Amino acid sequence: MTTRRSIPFGLMLQGAGSHMNAWRHPSNPPDASINLDFAIGIARKAEAAGITFAFVADGLYINEKSIPHFLNRFEPLTVLSALAVATKKIGLAGTISTSYSEPFTVARQLASLDAISGGRAGWNVVTTPLEGTAKNFGKAHPDHELRYEIADEYLDVVQGLWDSWDDDAFVRDRATGRFFDRDKLHTLDHHGRFFQVAGPLNIQRSPQGQPVIFQAGSSDTGIGLAGKYADAVFTHSPSLDETAAFTRRVKQSAIEHGRQAGDVKIFPGVGPIVGRTAAEAEDKYQAIRNLLTIDEALAYLGRYFDHHDFTQYALDAPFPELGELGRNSFRSTTDRIKADAKQKGLSLRETALAVATPRPNFIGTAEHVADELIRWHDAGAGDGFILGFPVQAQGVDDFVELVIPVLEARGRYSRDLPGATLRDHLGLPRKASRHAAPGASQEPAAEAHA
Amino acid sequence: MTTRRSIPFGLMLQGAGSHMNAWRHPSNPPDASINLDFAIGIARKAEAAGITFAFVADGLYINEKSIPHFLNRFEPLTVLSALAVATKKIGLAGTISTSYSEPFTVARQLASLDAISGGRAGWNVVTTPLEGTAKNFGKAHPDHELRYEIADEYLDVVQGLWDSWDDDAFVRDRATGRFFDRDKLHTLDHHGRFFQVAGPLNIQRSPQGQPVIFQAGSSDTGIGLAGKYADAVFTHSPSLDETAAFTRRVKQSAIEHGRQAGDVKIFPGVGPIVGRTAAEAEDKYQAIRNLLTIDEALAYLGRYFDHHDFTQYALDAPFPELGELGRNSFRSTTDRIKADAKQKGLSLRETALAVATPRPNFIGTAEHVADELIRWHDAGAGDGFILGFPVQAQGVDDFVELVIPVLEARGRYSRDLPGATLRDHLGLPRKASRHAAPGASQEPAAEAHA
Ligand SMILES: Cc1cc2nc3c(=O)[nH]c(=O)nc-3n(C[C@H](O)[C@H](O)[C@H](O)COP(=O)(O)O)c2cc1C
Ligand SMILES: Cc1cc2nc3c(=O)[nH]c(=O)nc-3n(C[C@H](O)[C@H](O)[C@H](O)COP(=O)(O)O)c2cc1C
Repeated sequence: MTTRRSIPFGLMLQGAGSHMNAWRHPSNPPDASINLDFAIGIARKAEAAGITFAFVADGLYINEKSIPHFLNRFEPLTVLSALAVATKKIGLAGTISTSYSEPFTVARQLASLDAISGGRAGWNVVTTPLEGTAKNFGKAHPDHELRYEIADEYLDVVQGLWDSWDDDAFVRDRATGRFFDRDKLHTLDHHGRFFQVAGPLNIQRSPQGQPVIFQAGSSDTGIGLAGKYADAVFTHSPSLDETAAFTRRVKQSAIEHGRQAGDVKIFPGVGPIVGRTAAEAEDKYQAIRNLLTIDEALAYLGRYFDHHDFTQYALDAPFPELGELGRNSFRSTTDRIKADAKQKGLSLRETALAVATPRPNFIGTAEHVADELIRWHDAGAGDGFILGFPVQAQGVDDFVELVIPVLEARGRYSRDLPGATLRDHLGLPRKASRHAAPGASQEPAAEAHA
Repeated sequence: MTTRRSIPFGLMLQGAGSHMNAWRHPSNPPDASINLDFAIGIARKAEAAGITFAFVADGLYINEKSIPHFLNRFEPLTVLSALAVATKKIGLAGTISTSYSEPFTVARQLASLDAISGGRAGWNVVTTPLEGTAKNFGKAHPDHELRYEIADEYLDVVQGLWDSWDDDAFVRDRATGRFFDRDKLHTLDHHGRFFQVAGPLNIQRSPQGQPVIFQAGSSDTGIGLAGKYADAVFTHSPSLDETAAFTRRVKQSAIEHGRQAGDVKIFPGVGPIVGRTAAEAEDKYQAIRNLLTIDEALAYLGRYFDHHDFTQYALDAPFPELGELGRNSFRSTTDRIKADAKQKGLSLRETALAVATPRPNFIGTAEHVADELIRWHDAGAGDGFILGFPVQAQGVDDFVELVIPVLEARGRYSRDLPGATLRDHLGLPRKASRHAAPGASQEPAAEAHA
């Protein structure tokens, strides 16, 4: 691997954008979160620009305090299946919770998306932070650690189901009437602590061997799960140093699980704001910040802390002491918010605004943003980035029109995706079956973009 | 309602066709069950011909004895979401089991499909006959009656979730920052015998009010469920008289549940085989019958009876006595098979062939088939038909090219779908919300095709 390599980008598809009030921004359609034409337009623009995958976050519980985007949005598998037909090459990754779904169903739906898209499916494995979710599924919300134990077994089951059929199991010989080769069928027969799943799966093996596993928990336990199973990790990007340290930790975890550092690709989420001048970028940021009142910012902050009511505290006093609040939900996020507030001596107001409408790490001219992305990348802060723009329409346009040309001029970006599958785009080899002879069918990675 | 009205047709999308060895027929691609281009081609041809909906059956358990089509096929929601983009008007109905899924997830996925397709989603509610399914979900297979009790509560929950938001709940007022109207949000808060579901659903109300409910169980209990909830029923079509009697029973059940006979549309499944002459149609049938050996026919029959091994009986002796076998699975089907064998004095061989490769009720020239369909329709044997061709490619081509023109000439078919949603296509009014003022928002049916 040379250091002067192409940087792969994924793109969050999240309606109007990551900012809670992005729907109010004039560059977006206000119904963006439920507007298929908008989603298709964004995905096609991204694909034409060589973005390697679209990424759909998700949640399974809302109440009237939820942010607008969460109240009314597409379900990931359905919208990604629609995008599979509306696009040709871009990867299609969606979030599904291992705490509130069935492995047989999820294995199958992802395998079906993979078949439909010709090998472009990815799954962002989450354990579901939001405690209220349990109320939609008639059961108790498992604790943070238990959720990860469930996820571990769940992934083992799903990957086992995905290997139910060898790649060449379906012979379909019309003359003899032989449809499949019995020796190439593997019935899972899983009996575990949380799941009993007989199998086999009722769909062929994936064009990419198996769909790509993304993982998005950042706690120690989350990193352990990523090291064991993940092909790619979606993470926060608080600073270059922290992101580089996180990257090393995940790769170290992969090595401890008998894998190689390059087997798991780290994608910090970034939301660049770009202007033709630095001042124009600042103006864009201020326009975004002004979409929000302080009360909305407090409510947004409260979401991470079990909808804690922050209006009870003085706005300009130091960030309050919260004990264990939120630690069973978004643990890595709440720990970081608390640590930041303490370290930088932030008030509640400053913390709420920093969380609800953060000043991005990447803001300024296209040259500045491109150079910063290259600097992070070369310093080992991730293998690529997931773009999560505060305001989707403006963010995508600016990135594609302004930043990508600079990255190209620097020799650090290519619009051509060399392969056909998401694994190809990520520079990952086709996934070998657990039933294959050791080393036999793990093909080398295609000439990689990543 | 006049008697000389247009007859609506749905079309089963089942890969190579309903015949277990349809993949061997030269008119089909052998991988039809997992071939997206084939599915899109068929759906577009059907749409252009004015077929009102595509219909995807499903199952959640296979083993090496399963018929080829079931071993390797798309999952319904994903393929229907893909078809939503590949087509413009045709309805998109898929099968999902109430015994092996979560109402919150299913309500949401169907609502998302409905949003993506502009109001074309339908759900074929099944309770899952196949006992082995339990082995993929780590629980016991509920009994026939219990399955229907679960289904009843499940449908109540799903329909409640679909009414979480009033049609005009999302105001999205950029000036004031008001995204939704709190008075138009309804949190379900369901506490029942089988399900605890808080809600609300995280997606807007359906373009058609609610997705269309199909139901496909034919036992007394199944008919009761249909009478209470179904907008449409998919059923067998053993004979005109039996189908007409079944149609009356379902409509009677609807009336007993305080609905009207026209609120539930009955769709018998038919698989016409058409030739330019009667002899050509017979030849086509023989070619289809020859796709199958007697051993394959016995195995196919066994599927309905918990994979009972029928090779243990003499082939030409009368159909054996089976007691309760299969009655916890495909009850209405197994009862019918047993009754038929007894009544017609069939041997095991004859029964197996009649089940595995049945001579269709509709076979002959286009004129004959069209006239028979009209005769059934006018005699009250259903409100339309679901086409389930033994061999898909040949069946669709022959029906579209040969039969539809005759139906048109008879004034009993129109290629133009007058409305935009599946409810429009079925001649059903937009579904009113349970929170609407009585009679307020139930709009009259569009000028109906059905
Ligand atoms: C960058 C990032 C993205 C995430 N995306 C989602 C998501 O889309 N849906 C979800 O339910 N949880 C999401 N999570 C939550 C995680 O799955 C996990 O449940 C939570 O972060 C707690 O685990 P942790 O303490 O290991 O981070 C995300 C977490 C991170 C760090
Ligand atoms: C015409 C028809 C089509 C059916 N389609 C399916 C299907 O696609 N998937 C499934 O699991 N069950 C299907 N079923 C099974 C029913 O949902 C039900 O579980 C079974 O028929 C037993 O109920 P019953 O005795 O009321 O018919 C179908 C049944 C009929 C009669």
